[in-house]
Amino acid sequence: MFIHDCLGVNSAGHLTIGGCDTIELAAEFGTPAYIMDEATIRARCTAYRNTLRECFGEGSMAHYAGKALSMRRIYDIVGEEGLGIDVVSSGELYTALAAGFPVERICFHGNNKTDADIEYAVKNRVGRFAADNREELDAISRIAGKAGITQKIILRITPGIDPHTHKAITTGDIDSKFGSPIATGQAEEIVKYAISLPNIALCGLHCHIGSQIFDVQPFAGAARIMLKFIADMEAKTGWLADELDLGGGFGVRYVKEDKGIDIASAIRELAGVINAECTELGIQRPRIMLEPGRSIVADAGITLYTVGSVKTIPGFRTYVSVDGGMPDNPRYALYQSRYEAVIANRAAEPKTIHCTIAGRCCESGDLIGENMPLQETSRGDILAVFVTGAYNYSMASNYNRLTRPPIIMVKDGKSYTAVRRESFEDLTRNDL
Amino acid sequence: MFIHDCLGVNSAGHLTIGGCDTIELAAEFGTPAYIMDEATIRARCTAYRNTLRECFGEGSMAHYAGKALSMRRIYDIVGEEGLGIDVVSSGELYTALAAGFPVERICFHGNNKTDADIEYAVKNRVGRFAADNREELDAISRIAGKAGITQKIILRITPGIDPHTHKAITTGDIDSKFGSPIATGQAEEIVKYAISLPNIALCGLHCHIGSQIFDVQPFAGAARIMLKFIADMEAKTGWLADELDLGGGFGVRYVKEDKGIDIASAIRELAGVINAECTELGIQRPRIMLEPGRSIVADAGITLYTVGSVKTIPGFRTYVSVDGGMPDNPRYALYQSRYEAVIANRAAEPKTIHCTIAGRCCESGDLIGENMPLQETSRGDILAVFVTGAYNYSMASNYNRLTRPPIIMVKDGKSYTAVRRESFEDLTRNDL
Repeated sequence: MFIHDCLGVNSAGHLTIGGCDTIELAAEFGTPAYIMDEATIRARCTAYRNTLRECFGEGSMAHYAGKALSMRRIYDIVGEEGLGIDVVSSGELYTALAAGFPVERICFHGNNKTDADIEYAVKNRVGRFAADNREELDAISRIAGKAGITQKIILRITPGIDPHTHKAITTGDIDSKFGSPIATGQAEEIVKYAISLPNIALCGLHCHIGSQIFDVQPFAGAARIMLKFIADMEAKTGWLADELDLGGGFGVRYVKEDKGIDIASAIRELAGVINAECTELGIQRPRIMLEPGRSIVADAGITLYTVGSVKTIPGFRTYVSVDGGMPDNPRYALYQSRYEAVIANRAAEPKTIHCTIAGRCCESGDLIGENMPLQETSRGDILAVFVTGAYNYSMASNYNRLTRPPIIMVKDGKSYTAVRRESFEDLTRNDL
Repeated sequence: MFIHDCLGVNSAGHLTIGGCDTIELAAEFGTPAYIMDEATIRARCTAYRNTLRECFGEGSMAHYAGKALSMRRIYDIVGEEGLGIDVVSSGELYTALAAGFPVERICFHGNNKTDADIEYAVKNRVGRFAADNREELDAISRIAGKAGITQKIILRITPGIDPHTHKAITTGDIDSKFGSPIATGQAEEIVKYAISLPNIALCGLHCHIGSQIFDVQPFAGAARIMLKFIADMEAKTGWLADELDLGGGFGVRYVKEDKGIDIASAIRELAGVINAECTELGIQRPRIMLEPGRSIVADAGITLYTVGSVKTIPGFRTYVSVDGGMPDNPRYALYQSRYEAVIANRAAEPKTIHCTIAGRCCESGDLIGENMPLQETSRGDILAVFVTGAYNYSMASNYNRLTRPPIIMVKDGKSYTAVRRESFEDLTRNDL
């Protein structure tokens, strides 16, 4: 009935998530609130862990990309599930360390790491850096040298794959703020430069081709290009990559029309391509890493709002205004992302209206979605928006001075708070 | 030389703001940092205050729209300058009250006020609500009654003006989540409904036609429509509006091609139209309110970043990556807003490159701008982006778990901190 398995309807006609009644959750924790199903997160982790192990053996691993959702509790969960993580800032690293995450399983990413980032990560003995550029290599080499260590790194490379046309191209993806393109010769240059630097151990290569990809072919294409480049570098320099990180990008179903991608089947298909390619190239298969973020957490989450007003402008449309909006979910404002929603206290009733779900900010673009089918509704109803587990809390702001919602986890019909609702005092905590 | 008067270059060739050397500010406070010139803010307040008084007498007033920038210090300044404020949430009201702002000069706006908002504002005896819809009127009436007071309100009305075509239209602007349109009869209905409710005193009407408007004509058009509606309501109901709030929307120059609007001249021109229209309609001129936000604070602010990497992709473009990005300034990601920037430590040198200024987030769309002229630059340089005083700090997030920058105020060559930089501890303060 609903887009994801953790959702249901109980005998009261209320939407449930992870066995909890959303109306009871709204009453207990208030709205807006993010609700996340722990079992869904663990199931996604299990799919990545088991399939990577099955296809590639022990050393291969998924690194959860915390930019999708970074909080202490998520690092507990993915850590218990045996995944590594990727962090993109000292703030993410701080959060992971605060959760006690094993530092050797952490890779520090990003197109612009500051000296302060590198110093903080080296001091804490981060497992890897995914180095982006020459300036970073210089800084890592210098700071690792000062700390008296050899720092493991991988290098971000741009394979030149457009995930939406499925071919290697010489435009588009090469024109990126991230990494060094193979096509321009810059990838080869930076590999040689990294090998030449002291205090750095170049362990492997990294690429990331995009987001919300539902086909295996673009990943397979990127893997082929990267493996060929690895073979080429071995021939030219003698350096052999021990790991190949293919990044993230597995798509998630936001609306029923999205076709989805099965994690286990996709990894198995990809493994076939990778193994064949390694045989053909005559190279030892590197350990294979993936960096799922969205596909671990997105469909575990929903957002609960309270409806405040229903306004029909005759000849135009009906606006349903809720008590959150772009501060807790900027994805419609940023990307016109589509969502599905229900009136949670009338979840068993048919959807009889089409409406625009508007946020409460003083900005016309503050919408959750347009032309959305919904049950009849009025002030006081609880609205649930689905698939908000990724890039919602992590992108949340205090725009219009709204406090950020809590994250409530549900598990087997019980709930607990992972992140408390911000207070008014939090808003002015740094004001002097 | 620069787009705004508070900027200059000193003998060291460094960019200055409000008489302070930006390189010294970056060294003292770190980057990224928002820097704001207090004198510019006060000059904008003075222009609104004096011209409204000159044109309309004592009761007319500008209400600073805090959604552009809400922090304790800004409320001190606009309060000292004799302005009122508009708030759009309990969080903004809390911040203003924390600054000791006179509550009778506060108007509570927004398209969806919760019962909790209304209770909090009534308890604190907020001056006005700008009520948006019927559900809110019911709630205000009920909550004011429970508190034993009569609550002053104004009503948000949609005049149906497209600010970019300068005409009253029957589409577009009417199709809004805000207010009640005159054209559909809903404005008349809601005025009558408000008058009929106990515990509410309807004082006037409000409209807001848009943002970044450089011509007086759309405001004049909206004023004519609103005054005609006021005359119509007086004829039909006997109720006479004591105030007319024409909202905000005066444009700000972000780049040299923007034509700008002179606040004082624009208000004088608008006053001529309003006075003539009132005479023609035979109504007493209501007190006139304006709600400037952006035009008070935008051009007082700049953002300082440190350059981390300069990457030229041959045949494509040059990326200059800085240590902030869409978390501190999401306006390019949201609206493709244009900015001007300089390398602050080379501010006297000519701009010889065109580049894309990229943020440090793991997201391709995290850019400050594209095709921007800039001085030659390398890691460690300080980049200044201009006109970031509005809708930057207020929209800032912790995306990628970056801490939000401080707001440093400058005044006559001295600096002080208005908002401290967030700490890592702040990031996990609400994590359990």
